[in-house]
Amino acid sequence: MGQTITEKILDEHLVEGELTPGEEIGIEIDQVLTQDTTGTMVWLQFEALDLDEVQTELAAQYCDHQTYQFDFKNTDDHRFLRSAAGTFGAYFSRPGNGICHQVHKENFAAPGKTLLGSDSHTPTPGGLGQFAIGAGGLDIAVAMGGGPYYVEMPEVVNVELTGELPEWATAKDVALHLLGELTVKGGVGKVLEYTGEGAESLTIPERTTITNLGTELGATSSIFPTDGKTKEWLALQDREDEFVDLAPDEDAEYADTIEVDLSSLEPLIACPSMPDNVVPVSEVAGTDVEQVIIGSCTNGAYEDILPGAKMLEGREVDRKTEMIVAPGSKQASEMLSREGWTAELMAAGVNFSEATCGACIGIGHVPASDSVSLRTFNRNFEGRSGIEDDSVYLCSPEVATAAAIAGEIVDPRDLADDLGDLEAPGFEMGSNYGPGMGRDDPDIIGPDEAVDDDLIKGPNIGDVPLKDELASDIEGEALLKMEDNITTDHIIPATADILKFRSNIEKLSEFTLSRVDDTFAQRALDADGGFLVAGENYGQGSSREHAALCPMFLGVEGVLAQSFARIHKANLFNFGLVPLTIDEETYERIEQGDDVQIVDDVGDGVRSGQEEFTIRVNDDWEATARLDASERERDILAAGGKLSWTKAQHDSGATGATPADD
Amino acid sequence: MGQTITEKILDEHLVEGELTPGEEIGIEIDQVLTQDTTGTMVWLQFEALDLDEVQTELAAQYCDHQTYQFDFKNTDDHRFLRSAAGTFGAYFSRPGNGICHQVHKENFAAPGKTLLGSDSHTPTPGGLGQFAIGAGGLDIAVAMGGGPYYVEMPEVVNVELTGELPEWATAKDVALHLLGELTVKGGVGKVLEYTGEGAESLTIPERTTITNLGTELGATSSIFPTDGKTKEWLALQDREDEFVDLAPDEDAEYADTIEVDLSSLEPLIACPSMPDNVVPVSEVAGTDVEQVIIGSCTNGAYEDILPGAKMLEGREVDRKTEMIVAPGSKQASEMLSREGWTAELMAAGVNFSEATCGACIGIGHVPASDSVSLRTFNRNFEGRSGIEDDSVYLCSPEVATAAAIAGEIVDPRDLADDLGDLEAPGFEMGSNYGPGMGRDDPDIIGPDEAVDDDLIKGPNIGDVPLKDELASDIEGEALLKMEDNITTDHIIPATADILKFRSNIEKLSEFTLSRVDDTFAQRALDADGGFLVAGENYGQGSSREHAALCPMFLGVEGVLAQSFARIHKANLFNFGLVPLTIDEETYERIEQGDDVQIVDDVGDGVRSGQEEFTIRVNDDWEATARLDASERERDILAAGGKLSWTKAQHDSGATGATPADD
Repeated sequence: MGQTITEKILDEHLVEGELTPGEEIGIEIDQVLTQDTTGTMVWLQFEALDLDEVQTELAAQYCDHQTYQFDFKNTDDHRFLRSAAGTFGAYFSRPGNGICHQVHKENFAAPGKTLLGSDSHTPTPGGLGQFAIGAGGLDIAVAMGGGPYYVEMPEVVNVELTGELPEWATAKDVALHLLGELTVKGGVGKVLEYTGEGAESLTIPERTTITNLGTELGATSSIFPTDGKTKEWLALQDREDEFVDLAPDEDAEYADTIEVDLSSLEPLIACPSMPDNVVPVSEVAGTDVEQVIIGSCTNGAYEDILPGAKMLEGREVDRKTEMIVAPGSKQASEMLSREGWTAELMAAGVNFSEATCGACIGIGHVPASDSVSLRTFNRNFEGRSGIEDDSVYLCSPEVATAAAIAGEIVDPRDLADDLGDLEAPGFEMGSNYGPGMGRDDPDIIGPDEAVDDDLIKGPNIGDVPLKDELASDIEGEALLKMEDNITTDHIIPATADILKFRSNIEKLSEFTLSRVDDTFAQRALDADGGFLVAGENYGQGSSREHAALCPMFLGVEGVLAQSFARIHKANLFNFGLVPLTIDEETYERIEQGDDVQIVDDVGDGVRSGQEEFTIRVNDDWEATARLDASERERDILAAGGKLSWTKAQHDSGATGATPADD
Repeated sequence: MGQTITEKILDEHLVEGELTPGEEIGIEIDQVLTQDTTGTMVWLQFEALDLDEVQTELAAQYCDHQTYQFDFKNTDDHRFLRSAAGTFGAYFSRPGNGICHQVHKENFAAPGKTLLGSDSHTPTPGGLGQFAIGAGGLDIAVAMGGGPYYVEMPEVVNVELTGELPEWATAKDVALHLLGELTVKGGVGKVLEYTGEGAESLTIPERTTITNLGTELGATSSIFPTDGKTKEWLALQDREDEFVDLAPDEDAEYADTIEVDLSSLEPLIACPSMPDNVVPVSEVAGTDVEQVIIGSCTNGAYEDILPGAKMLEGREVDRKTEMIVAPGSKQASEMLSREGWTAELMAAGVNFSEATCGACIGIGHVPASDSVSLRTFNRNFEGRSGIEDDSVYLCSPEVATAAAIAGEIVDPRDLADDLGDLEAPGFEMGSNYGPGMGRDDPDIIGPDEAVDDDLIKGPNIGDVPLKDELASDIEGEALLKMEDNITTDHIIPATADILKFRSNIEKLSEFTLSRVDDTFAQRALDADGGFLVAGENYGQGSSREHAALCPMFLGVEGVLAQSFARIHKANLFNFGLVPLTIDEETYERIEQGDDVQIVDDVGDGVRSGQEEFTIRVNDDWEATARLDASERERDILAAGGKLSWTKAQHDSGATGATPADD
C-alpha cells in the first residue's frame, strides 16, 4: 500500500510501535530546537540527565521571546543558554537574530528530517518538507539525550489545493480560510498534508506561513511535498545539498481530504479573540485601527514584509495609526535594509523594530486600552497582547498595510480602487540572499566555535531536582485536600511576576498551589514528603510541566484524586509522582493532615503491573487506590521520573538512537 | 561692558530681575519640549490651567523613554500625549521617531532662542547656540501657559578649546576629560560657554555631545557660538533661515576660564559608577565586556554611529559580547539604512534596535548579573541600567566598538596596531540628509495637522487637582510625625511598580509616605485636611514634584518641620502647602494625632509678609512657627499654588509673555 509523506518520514524514524492512527509510536528525532522561555528548563533537565553532549544530529537554541531584556533575569537566561549550547554541543542563535521558527527554517530545517521543538509553532518548516512537532521541555531534553519521542500516531489528512491565488489574496488567507472552515479544534490528532497544483504554485515562505498556522488548527503537524521551489529555496540559503524528494505515493490513503480552490479566496481577517473567528475583510471595513504590526513567525520573512514596503513606497502611515515592523529574522532585516526597503518603511512613518517574538506574546507594543490592533500574527486570544479585553485582528501583511494607510480596516482591493495608483504588490521571492547569512553568520555560534565550556548561571538560575527510584514504603501527611477541577493555573500560576522565575524551580515552587492555600509550599517542605488529595479532574488546563515539577521539588510523593486530567497525569509520571485514583467515599473520608501509608511495596508493585494498592489512613482504616498506567509509564514512574528513566536508558545503551557526534 | 553669549540671549529674554549671578531672574521661553515620562503630568497641569492653547512660539512632545510599550499604560500615555499636543497646539513626535534631544535638535532647535524642557539633558542643542535648560514639569506647563521661567542667574564660565582632536580622540573624550577634571558638581550654578579655535574645529554633532554631557557636570546649561558649521548643519535640515550669528563680545567678562588643549586628549572612559570616574582607556584595558551599546541622546546621531559601522565593516562582533545599536533618532536610522550601514552592522552581528532612550534608563537590554557593559551614554549611576551592582562604563562609539571587536576593553589605538588594517574612522558629516526628513516627516504631527481635538485618557490617566486659594483658618490633625532627613523617595517611591502610575495622581497618592507608614494615605484622606510634622531636612533628594502634589491631593494643608530641603520647599509653595518652620522644643512636644490650629488669618498673613504664625495644639498650648518666603513665593502660596497663580496671572493678562499663536 502506498504511503503518505508523513508515513514515509515516520517509517524511516520509527523506533517503537506501528503506524496505526491512535496508537503510541516512538520516533527518532534528528533535530531539536528550543527558545528562551522554555529553553532554560530544557538545558537544566539535560544537565540533570548528567549527559555530556547532545545526541541528536543537531540542536539549536534561540533567543527570541525576551530579546528586549527588560530584567537582568532575561539577560542572564540568554547567557546561560549560550553557555549550555556551548557546553553540550548545540548551535546558539544570539538575541536579536530572530524568531526560532524563522531562523531554524533559514539555517537548519531539512526535508525528510524530524524536528522536535519546545514551542507550539515548531511545525513551521513543514513547508520545506520537514516533519516537525512541538512538545514540552522535558521531551526535548530527553530527545537530546538520545531517547525517542512518543506520540499518538496521527491521522493524515490531505488538504488538496487547486487553482492559484488571485491578486490581494495570500498564503495567510489560505490558512485563515481553513481556520474559518475547520475551527481551532479541526486539526486535533491530525497531520495536514498539502497537495495538488495549488500547493505547487506556492513558494516556500508562503508554504511555511500555512504550516505555521496549522498549530492554530490544533494539528500535530502540517507538511508540504518538496519540489523545484524547495530546492531553489535551499540553494538561496546555500543548502541545496540538503534537498530530498518527498511526495505521497500515488496510491497513498488519507483519512480525509479537504479541497481548497485558491482562486476562490479573498482577503480574510480573524476577528477578536480567536484565530478561527474569520470573515472577509470587507465585513469589518471601516473599523478604526490604532496599531498595525507586521512580523512574527507567521509573516516575518523578507517576502512577507516586502509587500507592505512596496505599498508604502511614497505613501505615509495614517497619523492616528502606529505601525510597527518587527522582522522574523535578522536575515530578513538585513536584506530589507540592504535593498533600501527599511529606509522606505521608516520614511513612511513605520517604527522598525529588532527581530523578536515580542508583541505576539504581549512583550512590548501592548495595545492602548479600548483600541483595535491589526497584526500579521497567528494568535489573538483575549489578553495575549498584554492587555485584558483587547481587540486584536489577524490578517495578511497586505491587509495590515492597507489599514495603516487608511487608518481603518479596509479591503485592500477597495483601497486600490480609492487611491487609483496602488498596485497589488504580488508575491516576489528575495534575490538578495547573500553569503555570510546562514550558519556562518556571527549571530549563530556553532558547537565547534563555542565560547563557553561551562554553564554560566545567574542568581535566578537554579538546578532541576532529580528524583530517586520509587521507594518501597511511601507514607506521609495528606498535605492539602482540594475540590474538583483544580487547574495547572492553580498549581503554578502563569502571571508575569511568577513566570520570570521559570529557570528557578526552588523559587518558583514557593508559589505552588498558593492560589488554593498560601501556606502549602512551606508546609510541604517542612513535612518532607506527603500526598495531595483532590476530587475530579485534577490538573486540568495547560500542559506546563512545572505543575508536577514544583510539587516534586517540595517533596510531594503522590496524588490521590478521584480522576486526573490526561496531560497532567503524564507529567506526574514524568516527574515521578504516583497518581492514584480513589473513589468518592475514600475522598470524602480523608481529611487534610491525616497520615497516609501505602501498605504494599510501591516500587515492586509499580514495576510488576499491580493495579490496586491498599492505603492505610491514620493507622486506622484502609481503602483501595488504583494505578492506571502503561508499561512505559510504570517504568518511568519506578525510575523516579522520565529524567531518571532516560538517564538509566542512556547508561545501559538502550536509547534506540545513535549518538551523532561521537 | 561686553557680553557673553549667555548674557546676550538672556538679556533679550529678560522679563524680571537683573543679570547678576546668584539673583533670581525671570526669562521668556521661546520653545519647550517634554518627553513621555514627564510629559503626561505637564499636559495634565496645562489642562488644569484651563488654557486653550500653547503660548510659547513652539512646543514639542516626544515619545522616547517607553517606546517598547511594555504595559498598556505606556501606550495609553503616548496616545494621550498625541491628543494633548493636538488639542493644545504642540508638535507631536511619534513613538519610534527618536529621543527628544536628538529630534528637537534636528527639527526645531534654533540659535539664540530659549528652550525649557522637562528632561535634564535639555541643554543638548546648546551646541547649536540655543540657550536650553532642564526643569520640572510644572515649570514647563507654566512656561507653555505664557509665564516666565525663574532661575538664579548662573555664573558664565569660558571653556576655551585649543588645538584639534587627534586620531581616535572624540568629542566624547572632551566631555569625559572635563568630568574628570571638574567632577559631577563642577558645573553647578554655571553656564559653560565653549570658545576658541578648538570649538570652531568641532562639527555640530560633536558640539552637542559636549553640551549634552554638561548636565553631568551639574551645569545649568552649556553653549557654543554659532558659525559656518552651524549654518551648514541647519541647511542640511532645511532650516538655514533660522541661523543667527552668536559670539561673545571681545571684552566679555567670564567668571572663570578653563583651558582644554584638544590635541592633548586621548581615548577616555568613565568607570563604574559615576560619570566623573574617568581614566584613560588603556588603564582598564583587558577587562572582559559582555555588552556594548551605541546610542542615546549623547551619541545617537548618524555621525556617532558611522564610525562604529566603518570599524565593523568586514569584521565581526566578538562571540561573547552582545552589541546593540539604538540610534538617537529615526532620521539617523533612516540615513544609516539608506546608505547600507545598517546592513553592515547587522552582518557584523549587531542587534539593531528602534530609536529609543531605552537601555540608558534601564528600560530594556539590562546587563546580565556580574557583567561589564560599555555604553556611549551619559550616566552610569549604580543601578540605573536596571540591575543593582552593575558595572557600566561610559565611552565614545569608537572605544565601544573596539571593545565589541576585541571582547574586552581595549584602547582603539592598540587594537589598530594589533589588527594592522583597522583605520581610524575619523569624523565625517552625513551628506544624505534628505527631503522629507524633518518637520514634514510623517513621524512629526504638527499643530496644524493634529488628528485629535480632544484629550484621550486611558483608565490610568487622571486629573491634576487644582487647589483653592489659601484659606483664612487652617486646622487639622498632625497626621504623621517623622524623623530627620525624610527624602522624596520616602514621600513618593520611584520604583517601577509605582512609577507607571505617574499620570494618575489619585492612584499614585495611595503610595504617599507608605515607606514611613502604610496607613498614612488612607488616614489623610479620611481626615480631610491636616499637617505633616517632621524634623530636620524634610524632603531632601530628588526634585520630583509628586512629593508635594500627592500630599496635596490627600488633603494635607501644611508641613511643620525643623528645616526643609530647598527644592522640596519650592515644590510645597508650587502646590499650595504651607511650609512652616518650628523649633526643636515644639517638634518634640507635638504628637501624632494632635489637633493643630494656625491661630492667625493664614491667607492674609501669607499675602502681607507675616513671618511668624501662632499654632495652637489640642486647644491647650501654643508655639511660634515661621514662614520664610519671597514675595513671589507668598503670592504663589496664597493663590493655592503655582498652577492657580499662573491661571490668575493669565486671566489678568499679566503673564509678561506674548501669546504666539493667537
